[in-house]
Amino acid sequence: MSMESLQTRFFELRSNRFFELFVVSVILFSALVIGAKTYDIPENVLTAISWLDTGITLFFLVEITIRFIGEPDKKHFFKNPWNLFDTLIVVVSLIPIQDSEMALVGRLIRIFRVLRMVSIVPELRLLLNSLIKALPQLGYVILLMFIIFYIYAAIGASFFANINESLWGDISIAMLTLFRVMTFEDWTDVMYETMAVYPFSWLFYLTFIFLTTFAFLNMVIGIVVNVMENEHAQEEKEKALAEGQLTIEDLSNQIEELKALIEEKHRDK
Amino acid sequence: MSMESLQTRFFELRSNRFFELFVVSVILFSALVIGAKTYDIPENVLTAISWLDTGITLFFLVEITIRFIGEPDKKHFFKNPWNLFDTLIVVVSLIPIQDSEMALVGRLIRIFRVLRMVSIVPELRLLLNSLIKALPQLGYVILLMFIIFYIYAAIGASFFANINESLWGDISIAMLTLFRVMTFEDWTDVMYETMAVYPFSWLFYLTFIFLTTFAFLNMVIGIVVNVMENEHAQEEKEKALAEGQLTIEDLSNQIEELKALIEEKHRDK
Amino acid sequence: MSMESLQTRFFELRSNRFFELFVVSVILFSALVIGAKTYDIPENVLTAISWLDTGITLFFLVEITIRFIGEPDKKHFFKNPWNLFDTLIVVVSLIPIQDSEMALVGRLIRIFRVLRMVSIVPELRLLLNSLIKALPQLGYVILLMFIIFYIYAAIGASFFANINESLWGDISIAMLTLFRVMTFEDWTDVMYETMAVYPFSWLFYLTFIFLTTFAFLNMVIGIVVNVMENEHAQEEKEKALAEGQLTIEDLSNQIEELKALIEEKHRDK
Amino acid sequence: MSMESLQTRFFELRSNRFFELFVVSVILFSALVIGAKTYDIPENVLTAISWLDTGITLFFLVEITIRFIGEPDKKHFFKNPWNLFDTLIVVVSLIPIQDSEMALVGRLIRIFRVLRMVSIVPELRLLLNSLIKALPQLGYVILLMFIIFYIYAAIGASFFANINESLWGDISIAMLTLFRVMTFEDWTDVMYETMAVYPFSWLFYLTFIFLTTFAFLNMVIGIVVNVMENEHAQEEKEKALAEGQLTIEDLSNQIEELKALIEEKHRDK
Repeated sequence: MSMESLQTRFFELRSNRFFELFVVSVILFSALVIGAKTYDIPENVLTAISWLDTGITLFFLVEITIRFIGEPDKKHFFKNPWNLFDTLIVVVSLIPIQDSEMALVGRLIRIFRVLRMVSIVPELRLLLNSLIKALPQLGYVILLMFIIFYIYAAIGASFFANINESLWGDISIAMLTLFRVMTFEDWTDVMYETMAVYPFSWLFYLTFIFLTTFAFLNMVIGIVVNVMENEHAQEEKEKALAEGQLTIEDLSNQIEELKALIEEKHRDK
Repeated sequence: MSMESLQTRFFELRSNRFFELFVVSVILFSALVIGAKTYDIPENVLTAISWLDTGITLFFLVEITIRFIGEPDKKHFFKNPWNLFDTLIVVVSLIPIQDSEMALVGRLIRIFRVLRMVSIVPELRLLLNSLIKALPQLGYVILLMFIIFYIYAAIGASFFANINESLWGDISIAMLTLFRVMTFEDWTDVMYETMAVYPFSWLFYLTFIFLTTFAFLNMVIGIVVNVMENEHAQEEKEKALAEGQLTIEDLSNQIEELKALIEEKHRDK
Repeated sequence: MSMESLQTRFFELRSNRFFELFVVSVILFSALVIGAKTYDIPENVLTAISWLDTGITLFFLVEITIRFIGEPDKKHFFKNPWNLFDTLIVVVSLIPIQDSEMALVGRLIRIFRVLRMVSIVPELRLLLNSLIKALPQLGYVILLMFIIFYIYAAIGASFFANINESLWGDISIAMLTLFRVMTFEDWTDVMYETMAVYPFSWLFYLTFIFLTTFAFLNMVIGIVVNVMENEHAQEEKEKALAEGQLTIEDLSNQIEELKALIEEKHRDK
Repeated sequence: MSMESLQTRFFELRSNRFFELFVVSVILFSALVIGAKTYDIPENVLTAISWLDTGITLFFLVEITIRFIGEPDKKHFFKNPWNLFDTLIVVVSLIPIQDSEMALVGRLIRIFRVLRMVSIVPELRLLLNSLIKALPQLGYVILLMFIIFYIYAAIGASFFANINESLWGDISIAMLTLFRVMTFEDWTDVMYETMAVYPFSWLFYLTFIFLTTFAFLNMVIGIVVNVMENEHAQEEKEKALAEGQLTIEDLSNQIEELKALIEEKHRDK
């Protein structure tokens, strides 16, 4: 059998609805296996699971190979980040692991196989892409928020380090504490502690809460407005298409034609 | 009296405003009885309440029967899920219960009778329907959120199970703990505990919070945009109707008529 | 001096910018007095404050009288709920109070005098009116939310009363506990306690949180859409006015006139 | 070298991309130095850091001088609040500090140097300006919220001061406690404490939560609607420009011209 006909056959297989469903089922099954491992299970079941694991790894290897061979343009295959992600997950899980340190990494890799669900189901891929696309637009808001965090953490670490070392010990711990304050998690305990030494430190917390809440709101509204605008633009386009693109311009042209007609009729006489 | 005339009479009764109000009153009263039972009440009042309960059950039986007989198309009756729900509630509460295990179920059924309020008041039915309709549209966001939860729970159960069995013992407990982290409920206590063993585990919590908050926001914005669009489309339709549907097309036709008129007038000469 | 001229003069006084500013200052001062009373203050200052209090009461009495006499249409005066509120506050604070029980009520009345700020400043009155107007529209969502609360409270009080009397003792306490769960305030403590007896009670809490969050979201979106629509409608109206109300209809009429003109011109010949 | 040519040269330098990048790097480096100081560091590194600090201060002094000389219109320089802020930060950090009390202020000034990031990067400056611009519009909502806080704090301080001095001692402490209740931080602990004395005090907390949540929502919606409208208005403007501003008015004028043409043609005959 020639290489070309193999490619065509695998391309068909890969686009096959049942093949897709089967791959999704294997991914779901591998997720269940991962979940099962977190329960207390007898030794022989554990052995069975490790065999299942190897089976899933091999199946994924075969599947990726089919996808690769089925791809008409080989260069295109690795330009798709999802294909790269799939290949990486499969290749890494092939490496035999003995070391207990690496065993943890091996486990992590097996867990991330669940993410292949996103790379297979087009709707999920679309959703994640739109989430990722929204991020850079908000880049400056996130930068501003980071500056606010950094300044408040520097102030906190300078003034409150002696009060509670585990909350304000250094700037990184202080930033974690501030994130906690931002989520309102026992923030009054943190505040009352420092207010015992600096009675006006409530100003520190209240201004921080106001600033971050305001910046966060701004971020959310930014996303809303952006999504709305895109939806609106698309709607307008569809509407124009549906109406046969009859616009005010068309009317204007019609009137112009009418004018020309009258001119012509009167010239003829 | 013929069956037909009975049906007509019951149909009228069922559509009667006072009958509706009376049914709503009985439902409200049954809700009050359910509430009263949760207080410490003397034995004789309890007996009175149990008689009232039987009375309400019988009244609901009569009411459902009236509705059924009053329905012109009997098949249509059971196609309405609210009618099915009403019938189920009434039929199940007719079963005499002795067993203490079943007594709890009986109590639950009596509580769900309050939900009949929703099946009677059209505005509430409309509201609940719109809530239920919004759900499938968000299906993929919910699926993505579940995948995020599953992956983080698998990681949490793999690494933190030895630290706190009651929070990270298996994958289902870990998912409950993650839901708790998502609601910011004492999440720092959970984090500080694991940070004592894995100092970088704050990354686990912070990325989880960012991902779920972002996905949740996306879900909310999805609902908002959807509701807005529906409202907008309906508004446009109403506006078009109110204006006698005078559109750019109508204008275009008018101009075309004018053209024809001029052509005709000049041909006549 | 005739009654009429007095009315005119007081009407002018009442509309005077400086009089308004002075009344606002007195209200602010009365707010400061109320605040001052909450601090530990020496006896003689307390006496001075009680004299100030009487002074403020008398001033408000005079001010209300001026407003009433200044009103051209006396019946109109009491149709305004803000005037009723102002009069009530002033009249009640005139009643001399000896009894310690009533002293608390007297204090409350004095505190509510700060609300006169809202009745004086037009922008605040407008804002509060718009908040109050938004409420009835959301009536059915609030009713649905109350039904959800009632059903869950009835279930909670039936099943969990033996576990924790102070949280689930009767239906009203259970509703307060559920409100606490809705605000995520130590809700896991409440859940873990009942999960020890009923291991599946997490379903109770999670479904409750989902339902109330969803209903709350719906409420918020309802307000947003409503506000947006009103803004949009007003904008359209203003735009139409600014454009001299030139609409598609106007164009249609213009074309009709043109038609008539052509018809007429050709008939003349 | 003449003063003018120096100004031109410095103006060019100041607009130079590399100069900007270098200034941003120095600010980032100064932020890192501030962060490093919060860690436990050996004495000699501390000395090095204090030298670095002086270096950064001198660099900023030179930079501000360049900006000032480079400015064509000197008066314009101090009209820009960001320039004022930059100059203030630099001048204050020049003052030698010995006193330990003042040392804290000196540290604060050094931390605020990170804010120079905002004054340098135009996008961040724009973002902060838009945040500041949004505030006054919400002025009345914030005033209303303050009145709600004040009234509830006065009631709380009057009735609950004897129950818990540290939460309701005076009106300012009571306002802080109410802010805590608004963020749902352990608010039930505060409530249960007062409910032991006043069983109906849950009404106090629930009405407060409803009022503030409602007012906050209103504030958020106010920002959203405002941002949306601005975006919409700008969009409309751009659209009009893109379409060559062909509006219904233009059409109307065209029809009027047509009318005039017909009138003229028939008059000619």
